[in-house]
Amino acid sequence: MYNDHDTIIAPATAVGGALVLIRLSGADAIALADRLFHGKKPLTEAAGHTAHFGTIQEGERVVDEVLATVFRAPHSYTGEPTVEFSCHGSSYILSEVLRLALAAGARMAEPGEFTRRAYLNGRLDLAQAEAVADLIASSSRAAHTLATRQMRGGYSSALDHLREELLRLTALIELELDFSEEDVEFADRGELRRTMEAIAQRLTRLCASFSLGNALKEGIPVAIVGAPNVGKSTLLNQLLQEDRAMVSEIAGTTRDVIEEQLLIDGVRFRLLDTAGIRTTGDRLEQMGIDRTHQSIDRAAIIIRLIDAAQWLTEGVPAPDFTLRQDQQLVTVINKMDTLSATDTPPLAQGLIPLSARDGVGIDQLKERLRSLIATDRLEQEEVVVSSARHYEALGKAQQALQAALRGLDEGLPTDLLSEEIRAVIDALGTITGRGTILPDEVLGHLFSHFCIGK
Amino acid sequence: MYNDHDTIIAPATAVGGALVLIRLSGADAIALADRLFHGKKPLTEAAGHTAHFGTIQEGERVVDEVLATVFRAPHSYTGEPTVEFSCHGSSYILSEVLRLALAAGARMAEPGEFTRRAYLNGRLDLAQAEAVADLIASSSRAAHTLATRQMRGGYSSALDHLREELLRLTALIELELDFSEEDVEFADRGELRRTMEAIAQRLTRLCASFSLGNALKEGIPVAIVGAPNVGKSTLLNQLLQEDRAMVSEIAGTTRDVIEEQLLIDGVRFRLLDTAGIRTTGDRLEQMGIDRTHQSIDRAAIIIRLIDAAQWLTEGVPAPDFTLRQDQQLVTVINKMDTLSATDTPPLAQGLIPLSARDGVGIDQLKERLRSLIATDRLEQEEVVVSSARHYEALGKAQQALQAALRGLDEGLPTDLLSEEIRAVIDALGTITGRGTILPDEVLGHLFSHFCIGK
Repeated sequence: MYNDHDTIIAPATAVGGALVLIRLSGADAIALADRLFHGKKPLTEAAGHTAHFGTIQEGERVVDEVLATVFRAPHSYTGEPTVEFSCHGSSYILSEVLRLALAAGARMAEPGEFTRRAYLNGRLDLAQAEAVADLIASSSRAAHTLATRQMRGGYSSALDHLREELLRLTALIELELDFSEEDVEFADRGELRRTMEAIAQRLTRLCASFSLGNALKEGIPVAIVGAPNVGKSTLLNQLLQEDRAMVSEIAGTTRDVIEEQLLIDGVRFRLLDTAGIRTTGDRLEQMGIDRTHQSIDRAAIIIRLIDAAQWLTEGVPAPDFTLRQDQQLVTVINKMDTLSATDTPPLAQGLIPLSARDGVGIDQLKERLRSLIATDRLEQEEVVVSSARHYEALGKAQQALQAALRGLDEGLPTDLLSEEIRAVIDALGTITGRGTILPDEVLGHLFSHFCIGK
Repeated sequence: MYNDHDTIIAPATAVGGALVLIRLSGADAIALADRLFHGKKPLTEAAGHTAHFGTIQEGERVVDEVLATVFRAPHSYTGEPTVEFSCHGSSYILSEVLRLALAAGARMAEPGEFTRRAYLNGRLDLAQAEAVADLIASSSRAAHTLATRQMRGGYSSALDHLREELLRLTALIELELDFSEEDVEFADRGELRRTMEAIAQRLTRLCASFSLGNALKEGIPVAIVGAPNVGKSTLLNQLLQEDRAMVSEIAGTTRDVIEEQLLIDGVRFRLLDTAGIRTTGDRLEQMGIDRTHQSIDRAAIIIRLIDAAQWLTEGVPAPDFTLRQDQQLVTVINKMDTLSATDTPPLAQGLIPLSARDGVGIDQLKERLRSLIATDRLEQEEVVVSSARHYEALGKAQQALQAALRGLDEGLPTDLLSEEIRAVIDALGTITGRGTILPDEVLGHLFSHFCIGK
């Protein structure tokens, strides 16, 4: 499809600022860049990691005054010879520089192609490459922490450690194959089982971390539900400190589900304001209520609002939705300001008293939300899985490992047992791309999610 | 208002790409950057124009893996010690790096403050500094050429040359003042007059170039006018090669003036599609027609469309608008496809036959438009004024020079004559900022039009 030896070019920054950075990479990148560049000395003679002032010219015509930074292989992002032009940030200049470079023999880089080359040249493994894209997309401290750790390789080395243990096991088992006629056992079956079970436990723990990792990366969906007019939109506006949702005295004001982002202590929550649930003849309102049920399905946390007056007479009524096991419920008694202080009984454990209108109790609610997300694993620098691709691979590894364990119990022949363990190793290998050759389609798909110029 | 010794920081590129460049400048910039940066060796020990891989950290916490390029004074854009961090292009990372740098003692740069410092440190004169902003904003080849030349100093040196001639004259005249009691004439009054007249001519030529320079920089306004339903919107769409304007068989379809950009051979034209002019009782249509007259006023070129059928019977009718002396008219006979080839008489000189519907004749019209903009002055590398500020200063210089010439004729005393010439020198000096100290307000106003980070 495309040739990894071409010199590729792309803007590495967005256009619209004072400067724009244009990156060239490939075996011929420095010589090619030098054909456009006019400075004190040729870029081909420049040492790596040095910056040079000069002009980009088409013949005598000056296209721009630029700074060219030269990187010598393998000490560049891609591992290839690389030149970065820092140009003035005009879209005309960008298009002219690209035009001249293409005429000189470069071609436009595909999305993620620089990182793909970094991977192919062994500068990054796949998990690290994916983390680069996550890092660029990160908009909260937690998502940033996940991406940074993964990019810096801590994540990969934990997986490599698992793979190495498994490789050691298979080596022992496969040794037996060479001596099959002698019926020896190099690998003590009891020890083998203990090691495999320990690895299975670690895989389970990794898989279990995905719900946290994914939530931290994508933001934690929180549905705000309750009867019509209980103050859901007012609460949303209070949490966001802005007038996002339309608020009125009329029950059934909110129809569309409104989604907004809220950062609490570096963790991103995606708040879903919903239509109040009630029996209604209004077709549009009923559509809104149907969407509310979909939001409840998507939510990891459900904030349920109950009117203080209702609570005073009936207590906390049974919810009109079912809570899944992986969902958490926060019950809030709203409109506490409408009750007189004297005849208000104490709240049951876990209930949060609130006045969305005045903002009283908002901090307590935020603290509760934050406390439901146990980020200790992240803070303790444990490995947390945040990629759906990795989660899938870990699932496959786990299945293969269970099959191997069953095989061990059932006295599976050594060669078949070794094959099962190899399947675990392969599945783990697809995460970092180490020890396996991944097909071009897989790589293509993976890097197509990157931005151009990375 | 602000201190030029502070270390300033700002993103130098837009956010939204793979990378974002953050620039720090000031006497303390390298030491300050080094407090955030962790690499193989301290940035404070790095040579100028070298790039260093490392991390930006807050204590132990890694905020990003970056490339830091160090520039030593005076060999930087600002002339001050400068560090550029090339970070991953996440808005979270940008805000974290800015936060850490501000905490370490930097402050956010004002718009244009890096360039302002470059000017104050003598790296650029004012005309060059302004050209940097023009260059970033340039979106056509012609605007880019103007800005590049001005940035590279050709423009400034032409003005400096004028100033030097005037300085030489005043020196001679002022020498006479020292010997005023002896009644000598060092400056031959005949030669003085000839030199001053030559300079006046050059100033006139410079002022005259402004209409071209300004048009090339801002784009040349072209109004498309004609009777209702003569095909103005169809022509606009054909010129743009897209469905920009609403087209229908109903006369009076276009109400708002639509403005679109068209590049022809590197020159930008701003096409104004207008409402057809006719007597109408429709209030909205009448408002549209009023706007048409305003567009005609603004236009440098007017494309007048005439229906082929009308032309066949009546010839070219008198226009229902008056053409100013500085405006050019292009008369187009549209809907030529509705005439049969046999009974079509030859077109008079200058008329362009067209079928906007089929696109026939569009190229000829484009060529005509392009030919009306005499860019030979630009191509002959002549000095072309494109800044309104410079035009104003040149006007002042011209006035002062005329006053000096009158003074010469009227035998004005030497000291007053010298004062008049000094006024010319001062006016010219405000363009490049050389030889005059410009007040802070002037500089502040000038640089406030820049983007942040430049």
